[in-house]
Amino acid sequence: MVLERLKQVASHVTGTLPPPHPLDPLSEAEIASAVSIIRSEHKQELFFNAVTLWEPRKAEMLAWLATPETTPRPHRVADVVVIGKGSKVYDGVVDLDEKKVVSWELTEGVQPLITMEDLQIVESIVRMDEKVIEQCGLIGIPRENMHKVYCDPWTIGYDERFGSNIRLQQALMYYRPHPDDSQYTYPLDFCPIFNADTQEIIHIDVPPIRRPLNLAPPNNYHAAAVEAEGGFRTDIKPIHITQPEGVSFSVEGRTLKWQNWSVHIGFNYREGLVLNNLTFFDRDEGRERDVMWRLSLAEMVVPYGNPEHPHQRKHAFDLGEYGGGYMTNSLSLGCDCKGAIHYLDAAFVNRAGAPTTIKNAICIHEEDAGILFKHTDFRDDSCTITRARKLIMSHIFTAANYEYCVYWILHQDGTIQLEIKLTGILNTYAMLPGEDTHGWGTQVYPGVNAHNHQHLFCMRIDPAVDGHSNSVFEVDAAQGPGEVGSAENKYGNAFYAKKRLLETQQGGVCDYDGDVSRTWEMANTSRLNPYSGKPASYKLVSREVPKLLPKEGGLVWKRAGFARHAVHVTKYDDSHLHPAGRHVPQTSGDPSQGLPAWISAAPCTSIVDTDVVLWHTFGITHFPSPEDFPVMPAEPMTLLLRPRNFFRRNPCLDVPPSFSSAPSAPKKNQFVGGKTVGESTLAFGGTSACSKC
Amino acid sequence: MVLERLKQVASHVTGTLPPPHPLDPLSEAEIASAVSIIRSEHKQELFFNAVTLWEPRKAEMLAWLATPETTPRPHRVADVVVIGKGSKVYDGVVDLDEKKVVSWELTEGVQPLITMEDLQIVESIVRMDEKVIEQCGLIGIPRENMHKVYCDPWTIGYDERFGSNIRLQQALMYYRPHPDDSQYTYPLDFCPIFNADTQEIIHIDVPPIRRPLNLAPPNNYHAAAVEAEGGFRTDIKPIHITQPEGVSFSVEGRTLKWQNWSVHIGFNYREGLVLNNLTFFDRDEGRERDVMWRLSLAEMVVPYGNPEHPHQRKHAFDLGEYGGGYMTNSLSLGCDCKGAIHYLDAAFVNRAGAPTTIKNAICIHEEDAGILFKHTDFRDDSCTITRARKLIMSHIFTAANYEYCVYWILHQDGTIQLEIKLTGILNTYAMLPGEDTHGWGTQVYPGVNAHNHQHLFCMRIDPAVDGHSNSVFEVDAAQGPGEVGSAENKYGNAFYAKKRLLETQQGGVCDYDGDVSRTWEMANTSRLNPYSGKPASYKLVSREVPKLLPKEGGLVWKRAGFARHAVHVTKYDDSHLHPAGRHVPQTSGDPSQGLPAWISAAPCTSIVDTDVVLWHTFGITHFPSPEDFPVMPAEPMTLLLRPRNFFRRNPCLDVPPSFSSAPSAPKKNQFVGGKTVGESTLAFGGTSACSKC
Repeated sequence: MVLERLKQVASHVTGTLPPPHPLDPLSEAEIASAVSIIRSEHKQELFFNAVTLWEPRKAEMLAWLATPETTPRPHRVADVVVIGKGSKVYDGVVDLDEKKVVSWELTEGVQPLITMEDLQIVESIVRMDEKVIEQCGLIGIPRENMHKVYCDPWTIGYDERFGSNIRLQQALMYYRPHPDDSQYTYPLDFCPIFNADTQEIIHIDVPPIRRPLNLAPPNNYHAAAVEAEGGFRTDIKPIHITQPEGVSFSVEGRTLKWQNWSVHIGFNYREGLVLNNLTFFDRDEGRERDVMWRLSLAEMVVPYGNPEHPHQRKHAFDLGEYGGGYMTNSLSLGCDCKGAIHYLDAAFVNRAGAPTTIKNAICIHEEDAGILFKHTDFRDDSCTITRARKLIMSHIFTAANYEYCVYWILHQDGTIQLEIKLTGILNTYAMLPGEDTHGWGTQVYPGVNAHNHQHLFCMRIDPAVDGHSNSVFEVDAAQGPGEVGSAENKYGNAFYAKKRLLETQQGGVCDYDGDVSRTWEMANTSRLNPYSGKPASYKLVSREVPKLLPKEGGLVWKRAGFARHAVHVTKYDDSHLHPAGRHVPQTSGDPSQGLPAWISAAPCTSIVDTDVVLWHTFGITHFPSPEDFPVMPAEPMTLLLRPRNFFRRNPCLDVPPSFSSAPSAPKKNQFVGGKTVGESTLAFGGTSACSKC
Repeated sequence: MVLERLKQVASHVTGTLPPPHPLDPLSEAEIASAVSIIRSEHKQELFFNAVTLWEPRKAEMLAWLATPETTPRPHRVADVVVIGKGSKVYDGVVDLDEKKVVSWELTEGVQPLITMEDLQIVESIVRMDEKVIEQCGLIGIPRENMHKVYCDPWTIGYDERFGSNIRLQQALMYYRPHPDDSQYTYPLDFCPIFNADTQEIIHIDVPPIRRPLNLAPPNNYHAAAVEAEGGFRTDIKPIHITQPEGVSFSVEGRTLKWQNWSVHIGFNYREGLVLNNLTFFDRDEGRERDVMWRLSLAEMVVPYGNPEHPHQRKHAFDLGEYGGGYMTNSLSLGCDCKGAIHYLDAAFVNRAGAPTTIKNAICIHEEDAGILFKHTDFRDDSCTITRARKLIMSHIFTAANYEYCVYWILHQDGTIQLEIKLTGILNTYAMLPGEDTHGWGTQVYPGVNAHNHQHLFCMRIDPAVDGHSNSVFEVDAAQGPGEVGSAENKYGNAFYAKKRLLETQQGGVCDYDGDVSRTWEMANTSRLNPYSGKPASYKLVSREVPKLLPKEGGLVWKRAGFARHAVHVTKYDDSHLHPAGRHVPQTSGDPSQGLPAWISAAPCTSIVDTDVVLWHTFGITHFPSPEDFPVMPAEPMTLLLRPRNFFRRNPCLDVPPSFSSAPSAPKKNQFVGGKTVGESTLAFGGTSACSKC
């Protein structure tokens, strides 16, 4: 591996490999190089928390993209977070081209995110801790069974008793009667606090009422358990999805081209997938048009609704506190994605400073997407029917008990879709037989209380709608003026799209209103559609937009400022990437970091006809029920970014139809896309007697 | 054909064919029989508007289902609408087993829906009408080009100048320079009114400002037009979807069994697909459990938002005024649906009383549905991943310019999904160059004004959640009591599901509230989940729920009473099938028919622990833009019915996983569902290096 990496570096130096795209994630070699440069300047013991691409400043990047021949190529730069002895946190920037550390700061009073390595160590320490052993004993677990005790270590969130200066984790405790039993059926009632610096348990939160170890039989879902209960059903016949002529997309480096789309696919330890420089070739205008500069899931928070201490601490920021990239799954063919798949790997740094790679971190594939458009003329039966294809870029990350499956989808009609599926296992807590959950949770299995919770995601949308000077309009469906019977609205049927320009950062804070089908349009007001006269826009259509339920002024409200509103719009700033702050664990929310801080620092900054970022919070509120346990059927959630007044007409008319006939030749079937049609069959044999074919 | 039909009847009589299921749509033979029985009793000239199954009364049907051996089989009965001379309307009921007309009523002051045959005739009459020719001349169409004039005849909706006694249509006028040009690019500015009884034009609505014929070049989407503009793209490689071992469902008559589901698939001229008697085999309880008694789209309305006369008349009730079944497409293999398809035909009566059949009216097929559930344990990398399958029953209907693609989807986890895709062509109206649309529409192409509109669907949900005695709860996500800092809610994070029992028909009228993620639970309060203690429920999760925009007291508000609220709940009544009334065309809304009438007639009727029906209005508000033209990329919309506290646990644990490993054998891969995995490939060759495989 080391040899291979050295070869790679060498071939880069000798020019046998093309240089990376400036937005490519750091390679293993680049990570190794960054670590080595830091080590040569800073000789003390350092634990590496993150070494990731410090993305080129946008102005520099756009200049280079415009004239790559004459503009200097943006340097490859690493953004580094390092933890030194005594929980000292250093934020560094390393220029890999110049091979030097360009900034290095000791950052006081913050805690960087918790890595998988940070998590892994806690369980073994918990098992050996005498106070934990004592607590286990009190609820019925003898010392000799401590190897059956498990924990999911979480960041502590924020606990005012311990503050922000000591790096802490809370250990949510479980038990496995057998190594193959799901521990979430056996939650324990106490919660140790772990000091990551000293690697010891410094406190245990013990509830006033004790709940002995659950004695219910295991509730498992792995193969052996199902086999033991009668086995798997045998009536699901295989569905094969094949592309005998290959896929319809091409990939050069990390730039993907598919249909009229072009997109650069990035990935980092925190946001996971990052889509950059999305453009669409507009055949009517004969040019490549900018659509979005950068799309990502930038943050999320999962507040739980049980007010009993210490459950208020359960409100994980899965991206900012753990990293959607770090937790990402290595995907497997035919399991996570079906069809003809292209994978990309993801390289990270480990605690010791060595590069590591998650193979198959990103899945790219196409799917048939049903009908793209269809119309039959009723008078002559002439018909055109065109099937749709979609391109999916996905990754899946496991945040302790839960999994998040993230699908970024491009459509032929210019629509961008984000779909998220929630699956995995409910976070559970112990309950006594007959105990009143007070409505804060549901008994999903005897002795298992699954608390109410929300999943609130913050999508960072950096639009480039026909260029980087954009404005945002809030658009509501509104009744027209004039009462029923009036001259202007005699029958009362007048309605229109009421648009409100968002003018300043302070004024760019919006709530959702489903009643008026509220959407937001990111518009280029200097590019008017030649037909409609309206600005070229992309519209955010998002319908799963619950209110943040934790109350104003409370812990979650303070820490997760981004989640207070459905939409915030800010003027672009290279440093504004993390809506809950750069370092999230153990922030108190006094003052709130990220979005509230940026906006309150410059409330009157104009967001009109300038480079803007739209931050959208969406998600679901989950009241668990027994069918979500012991593993949860995937719950889907989706949103769309749709072109409006952007194109002169339907931009996918050039997709070959499956069938098209015109009135002047009604009997002549034009199977333009016929070769895809022939593959379908009748379920039970025989021939299809459609009137058209 | 006649011979074949006679044979069928004969074999039925001689017992060589099994008798139809009582909920099966009438066969061609039964339709012929009903017509013949009526003709033998009523000798006058009759035009048949509808001959459809008069569904067995629910009590009778349930009794027979419970003990089919001892209970008399419900008779086959036809529900008949006939138009006699002088626009007389007869509603009849014919018992096919007893071969007699059991009721026959002359219904005054109503107009039954408009059939395709009713529509077809108008265009030829319009072309020959001297006053229409005169109007065409005024806007630039010479008499010799009248063969290039087209019209989409709509029901008149309601026009107070003409009332309800004469059967009328309004002709929305268009022009085709060439027979293959899309007429929606050339809307004409006037609107003739057609008397269906006398078959003549009785009036023409002419706008105060005239708009000459559009002179813009054609804007077409058929194959020849695209070929002429540079042709179709050639970079879409085929995707083959095959089921070499056959499909996973079975069909006996019209009863489909798939996974744990059983459902009877009905179809009628009005609602199109009707799903009956949906049950789910609960392996944990070892019994077949009732889920839903009957699901359908019962009505819809499409109000347009331009208040200028006579556009208020554009508010089509596509189901009640035209019939989703009558307008249904004959589907073709590989075009409308891909994979291994089972089709069902649909039989109707024509105007002359002869049975007719739309071949392949209903498509039934399976699709891979991505991940069903997945979890990886982060500490040992044990993983289970199971892929989902879904079963789709669909039909597509063409309502003049628009198409509605209706997908009823069953999921393995007990979820029922309704997905609707809107495609086809915008309704258009003429506009002058530079004319101000006043916000009521958008110029989508030079000279083409597409008006704002809503698509509001009414889904009729007749639940049978573990039996027929059900109640409905409105469920809101709510903050817990206690201010931040209080003992009961110190950190402000308390939240819960606030449930409100709907008690009476009047009290069962609910609006949507996206802010609180409002859902509705159809519950059986006598079947408490053994773990959660909560009633077995199915939850309606629907997020596309716009407000009816036409104003209270106005024409649409009065006629489309069902659309005033997101949810109405009524006590079950065999006769309550049509939420805007049995005969919808030319209803004035004074008083409102259907739901408002039923509820105001019995406001205090209890809807608690009884047989109830939930009527749900959902849809979208559409502000057109040029990318929707000349044919609209499909716009999707969806809602879910999800089991909550219905099962004891995830009901699809017995679906074979694609991959499953347990901690005690972490290196042993258990490819339980391996044969489906092998079909996937890497996009660009090579081998997959996933860490698990």
